[in-house]
Amino acid sequence: MNLFFTNHVADTFLVLEDQEAQHCSRVLRRQVGSNILVMDGRGYSYEASITSIGRSEVRADIIKRTYHDIPSYPSIAFGLIKNTTRIEWLVEKVTEIGVSHITPLITARSERKALKIERLEKILISAAKQSLKYHLPIIQPTITFKDYIAHHSPKPFFVASYDPTHTQLSEYTTKLPPNVIIIGPEGDFAPDELQMAKNAGGIGVNLGSSRLRTETAAMVAITILNMP
Amino acid sequence: MNLFFTNHVADTFLVLEDQEAQHCSRVLRRQVGSNILVMDGRGYSYEASITSIGRSEVRADIIKRTYHDIPSYPSIAFGLIKNTTRIEWLVEKVTEIGVSHITPLITARSERKALKIERLEKILISAAKQSLKYHLPIIQPTITFKDYIAHHSPKPFFVASYDPTHTQLSEYTTKLPPNVIIIGPEGDFAPDELQMAKNAGGIGVNLGSSRLRTETAAMVAITILNMP
Repeated sequence: MNLFFTNHVADTFLVLEDQEAQHCSRVLRRQVGSNILVMDGRGYSYEASITSIGRSEVRADIIKRTYHDIPSYPSIAFGLIKNTTRIEWLVEKVTEIGVSHITPLITARSERKALKIERLEKILISAAKQSLKYHLPIIQPTITFKDYIAHHSPKPFFVASYDPTHTQLSEYTTKLPPNVIIIGPEGDFAPDELQMAKNAGGIGVNLGSSRLRTETAAMVAITILNMP
Repeated sequence: MNLFFTNHVADTFLVLEDQEAQHCSRVLRRQVGSNILVMDGRGYSYEASITSIGRSEVRADIIKRTYHDIPSYPSIAFGLIKNTTRIEWLVEKVTEIGVSHITPLITARSERKALKIERLEKILISAAKQSLKYHLPIIQPTITFKDYIAHHSPKPFFVASYDPTHTQLSEYTTKLPPNVIIIGPEGDFAPDELQMAKNAGGIGVNLGSSRLRTETAAMVAITILNMP
């Protein structure tokens, strides 16, 4: 099943634009009169019938509109790493598995202070279409670790570190565990950052005995937090 | 902590070669007399002292040899996908998380029938060093789905499919679950393949409600099978 994405939905029709339009008309060769399935990333899917195909837009009349409840996915914040490709994979994979908010953090050992969001938004849309997620995750603006913690406190959150004295995340068995986890950058958190997080209500956990790269740690954490 | 890899270990000394040697001498600028930590991928780690640095090799006297027990990691087989980058990520991530054997499969819907192993071996070594795995996973030669199943039967194994009628892998609570999982290619298994697997003792599972790409499914499955 192919799912298309659009930001452009009116009362009775919708418009696929740019890449989505080209994918629909040129790659998949859909014709006027074909039915397509479209989502808006805000919880609605649309069954629609193509009425016109232009150079960079495809118009379709809405036949049926369906609202999908928003799932209670966990949220993740991660210390920025140098390698953009690894950040893109992180975003793609946690979106596929199921995530609510993604927040890039500036930590003591982050080797990067800024991040371009546009390309990540495209990856997000592609991963959401692939994994049939009707609500796009929200990528929040980059903030400092300190500000992020201050914002969350006093609500509890997990802070993952490669520290064998911490409890393993998967063994955390309270009935209502926090739904937020913070992952360190390459080289992990600095000790005073971990202490700061714990003082603010952060629960130190590890993700098993392997020393994981940041993007791997994020995927493992989101997999575990999504388990029933 | 930097961990180096070598295949070249004698009784009293070892030799780092090519990239490992260059990383040691040029990137990290280790000198004669420096101590380094080296692993052979077969369970041994070595503390060693550098005795000479050449153009493409670094020799070191072994000070201490330590054997690390082999962990009981799960094994994975996956339907070959078109995109080599995604296969490389699959191999990197399952190695980081912890895997015993990795087997590429030719399935009905695989868009590729062969795979170059050399580059994957390099990725494997890098991921093992990163995640402090002293035993390298074994990449087995590509075989057909049918042959793989015949080889495993009658021992039980999991076969993962995007099928809501299957039990979720994470809810599988026998005391001694199979330690082997098979993941489909893009487009999943063909129905007769699933039936063939079940006839041979395969236990059909899904990985939750998300439709995951092959490499994501592999990471999620290996994360769950590694949980205590």
